[in-house]
Amino acid sequence: MKVGFVGLGNMGMGMAANLLNAGHEVTVYNRTLEKSKPLVEKGARKAASVAGACNGDVVITMLADDDAVENVCFSDAGIVNNLAEGAIHVSSSTISVALSDKLTAEHAKRGQRFVSAPVFGRPEAAAGAKLFIVAAGAVDAVDACMPLFGAMGQKTFRFGDKPSSANLVKISGNFMIASTIETLSEAMALVAKGGLDQHQYLDFLTSTLFAAPIYKTYGTLIADKKFKPAGFAAPLGLKDTRLALAAGESLRVPLPLANLVRDRFLTLLARGDETLDWSAISMLAAEDAGVE
Amino acid sequence: MKVGFVGLGNMGMGMAANLLNAGHEVTVYNRTLEKSKPLVEKGARKAASVAGACNGDVVITMLADDDAVENVCFSDAGIVNNLAEGAIHVSSSTISVALSDKLTAEHAKRGQRFVSAPVFGRPEAAAGAKLFIVAAGAVDAVDACMPLFGAMGQKTFRFGDKPSSANLVKISGNFMIASTIETLSEAMALVAKGGLDQHQYLDFLTSTLFAAPIYKTYGTLIADKKFKPAGFAAPLGLKDTRLALAAGESLRVPLPLANLVRDRFLTLLARGDETLDWSAISMLAAEDAGVE
Amino acid sequence: MKVGFVGLGNMGMGMAANLLNAGHEVTVYNRTLEKSKPLVEKGARKAASVAGACNGDVVITMLADDDAVENVCFSDAGIVNNLAEGAIHVSSSTISVALSDKLTAEHAKRGQRFVSAPVFGRPEAAAGAKLFIVAAGAVDAVDACMPLFGAMGQKTFRFGDKPSSANLVKISGNFMIASTIETLSEAMALVAKGGLDQHQYLDFLTSTLFAAPIYKTYGTLIADKKFKPAGFAAPLGLKDTRLALAAGESLRVPLPLANLVRDRFLTLLARGDETLDWSAISMLAAEDAGVE
Amino acid sequence: MKVGFVGLGNMGMGMAANLLNAGHEVTVYNRTLEKSKPLVEKGARKAASVAGACNGDVVITMLADDDAVENVCFSDAGIVNNLAEGAIHVSSSTISVALSDKLTAEHAKRGQRFVSAPVFGRPEAAAGAKLFIVAAGAVDAVDACMPLFGAMGQKTFRFGDKPSSANLVKISGNFMIASTIETLSEAMALVAKGGLDQHQYLDFLTSTLFAAPIYKTYGTLIADKKFKPAGFAAPLGLKDTRLALAAGESLRVPLPLANLVRDRFLTLLARGDETLDWSAISMLAAEDAGVE
Repeated sequence: MKVGFVGLGNMGMGMAANLLNAGHEVTVYNRTLEKSKPLVEKGARKAASVAGACNGDVVITMLADDDAVENVCFSDAGIVNNLAEGAIHVSSSTISVALSDKLTAEHAKRGQRFVSAPVFGRPEAAAGAKLFIVAAGAVDAVDACMPLFGAMGQKTFRFGDKPSSANLVKISGNFMIASTIETLSEAMALVAKGGLDQHQYLDFLTSTLFAAPIYKTYGTLIADKKFKPAGFAAPLGLKDTRLALAAGESLRVPLPLANLVRDRFLTLLARGDETLDWSAISMLAAEDAGVE
Repeated sequence: MKVGFVGLGNMGMGMAANLLNAGHEVTVYNRTLEKSKPLVEKGARKAASVAGACNGDVVITMLADDDAVENVCFSDAGIVNNLAEGAIHVSSSTISVALSDKLTAEHAKRGQRFVSAPVFGRPEAAAGAKLFIVAAGAVDAVDACMPLFGAMGQKTFRFGDKPSSANLVKISGNFMIASTIETLSEAMALVAKGGLDQHQYLDFLTSTLFAAPIYKTYGTLIADKKFKPAGFAAPLGLKDTRLALAAGESLRVPLPLANLVRDRFLTLLARGDETLDWSAISMLAAEDAGVE
Repeated sequence: MKVGFVGLGNMGMGMAANLLNAGHEVTVYNRTLEKSKPLVEKGARKAASVAGACNGDVVITMLADDDAVENVCFSDAGIVNNLAEGAIHVSSSTISVALSDKLTAEHAKRGQRFVSAPVFGRPEAAAGAKLFIVAAGAVDAVDACMPLFGAMGQKTFRFGDKPSSANLVKISGNFMIASTIETLSEAMALVAKGGLDQHQYLDFLTSTLFAAPIYKTYGTLIADKKFKPAGFAAPLGLKDTRLALAAGESLRVPLPLANLVRDRFLTLLARGDETLDWSAISMLAAEDAGVE
Repeated sequence: MKVGFVGLGNMGMGMAANLLNAGHEVTVYNRTLEKSKPLVEKGARKAASVAGACNGDVVITMLADDDAVENVCFSDAGIVNNLAEGAIHVSSSTISVALSDKLTAEHAKRGQRFVSAPVFGRPEAAAGAKLFIVAAGAVDAVDACMPLFGAMGQKTFRFGDKPSSANLVKISGNFMIASTIETLSEAMALVAKGGLDQHQYLDFLTSTLFAAPIYKTYGTLIADKKFKPAGFAAPLGLKDTRLALAAGESLRVPLPLANLVRDRFLTLLARGDETLDWSAISMLAAEDAGVE
């Protein structure tokens, strides 16, 4: 397929590379153009503008936040003004339900198709084509994208024809991860203050009731107090928690756990270091307890 | 070994049966004496009083709460007054850190040994000898009990020589389960209000990031709204959350998630039904959101 | 002075009338034009557009929310495009710190002056010129407006030369009122469940430690369960709480109480009735406790 | 009247002195006996034991907590065993609803009368006979005590014939004060981070909507960061919050604000300084926000 790819960050780089590996014809665009070099060496074309990435069957966006997506989509030289009728915009960024709904409406007005397809997985998973992809949109549009999803992820989960449903799944999933970090943080602060070894406690948890990789991953980061380099930086954690709360506010769903986690991020960021991993909020439960 | 077993509830019944199956000489006691009948048929001796279960190498208690354990241990005809010097009291009940520390001190005064060995698992796991056992106490005492633990559980985790450490692990573990129920409840209320199918969402969660059995078990109960019969009744959930908060207060460890969960239990129980499973607190996040 | 007044709601109507009473030359504008009739009968001029209210020394806006203010200010026929150089825009609406900062910048670019002057008080206080006015902005600009403030309120509090400081005071003040409602709600649910009479309890509170009118006002509404007609409707309570949280997020200040109150509003509004007074959130603490 | 007075702390000292001033015959007892010296100089008799203070018409207890009251009441030489039939025990300590109910039952068994009469006010108010007294118990018993209450306080509020109702009023009142401290703390952290002066903000609050002395008192302590010497020490704040939560748990009333305040006390006390005033929890909202 002829695919444009906009956004070559930690995640997008691996995703675009896997599209190339799978034999698709990929035109890449990134604000800092030099980032595209390794992909060009693998055979990608380099677009000089967003519009230049919009002349294929599909254009995929993988950007940091709502603002970045709005910019790339709604500026004069942006996707909405330049995508052909019938072509598909696949948004893989973690964006708000509200923006996803707006994109759905704006693309529909122009006879363009819109698929929301956010992903779960860290940069290594993106590089290894091991992402979990959550897709929603018109059936034919999602069908058309399945080969692309197959090239980028290990499994695609389809959530119906309303694109923003996929965003809600992504947002709620990240909320669950953040809540799990907080849960681990409190439990580990409690046992540490009681004199137990956090690693031994974690071994127990992950070999019994909490045998999911997420407990191993985050529990180890917490016990090791290893928050740099960030796999997923705290400001992004705050952003995603805000998205969950915004979705909750718009749907009128109170999320007290999301409030708690949001406050943890605010407290962490009030200190000024924006480069820590989001699991660094675990320091706060520990400090409140006087666990050094 | 010659073992007394006090407390033949849903859990104790299976545990005592497995001790018999493993060839130990077991004397059982239960407040309602007829409960011992099936065990007597399997070869157990029946004691007419707590004291009658105290003349072996070990006496195991598996009771509902601190009050029940205090009664059985500190009454005139109780364990503390009747256990031989050198004999071991194994407490498998979910009790407070404070009571565990008191038992440690009182047994020590009398030259008795005390091992705390709470268990993780539902009644089926108790019956199938599939419990996870968390043990702490003097090394020789825990060593001596390992054959008993091997008969009752699939794996024993040792947490040092301070008995109440095992209680802290148990209490914090139950706190983590309750927090997981709350996390699932909020996430599932959010996606349901957004029009998604909770079962499909749960399938996604449990086949990706949250692949631990606990998510499958509780997520299904929540999506099915199947809270009867209770695997673990809400009042026990409240009790265990209170134990976590009491441990936290005594150690000066704030546990905001435990507060939230405690309020859920209070709200649920304020309605008057004490027989629901503790996962029924999920109804509250749903109701607050107007999800019917 | 020659004053334009935009926004003749419950509050604006009384404020504009008091400017007329004090002898100022007032031109009024409201989206639904017929609302201006009683003021025209008192001598006001009626503008057919926002621009028509912009040709005096000062234009005052008293509108529902950020969206309304953005519309009136930034549309082609809006205030920013039509106010004379040196003239003053006084914003008395409860708006976000962010919008206040934006207005400050945009007016400055055009040589216009901007004063933020939100008010405390219900419609009766607006009608009776009993408002408390919180003003911030360049000293000369606020000085120039003092006669207007004197006509509308009983006292003006000045908070320096940064206009959005006044908004922060207003937002935090409303947060404090909402927190007070929640505090009363919980305390009154507790004593009611314990069998006490809420009115008697309230009499005690307000004649001892909590002798401020706010406790009398809201405590009586709560005890009487009299939430209609709304003095200040619940959706406005949610809006103002959101403004507090947004200010907190931007300044990196966690506000756990604001989270709690926000969830109360969401729960209340999830039921569908938007016309209740914001003190109706007290029903939730009562219901959670099973107090009927 | 012939009155025994047990407990000569900061509060009890002033209360007993005022009983003497009013002409009552007072026998005092305190664990550290020398504390009674100034009262003896004013004409009090000094008892060598609790029992020695029990031979009048009334014995008043003013002690630190449940444990102290249990000790003084239920030990062999305690009040319950030594008070005459028909005599009255007035408990002015801040104790739990549960202990108040227990005292009611135990005194009734022995034909003794029990009045619960906790007080509001700081030591200065106790010394100046300016306390607010909240009394509950059998009508004739409270009637009989009114002259004593009149000697110790400025006003007595009667809450029916169930003694523990007075304790519930006291506990919920202290919960309201603690919530007010938290409310002020968050609002003042927000405006301070926004660059405003806390004293000026407080002046505004206390001269408009929040004109109760409590806002002045605690707001000033917070703005001045003056937490020593403690008017009411943080560990007592934690104790009283625990009493509110215990009453709530027993009555099945969730109190999310009390949870929040409790966590603040735990965090504060986890640092090790037990001598700060309870308003020192305000440091935590400030620190979480990075307000120095």
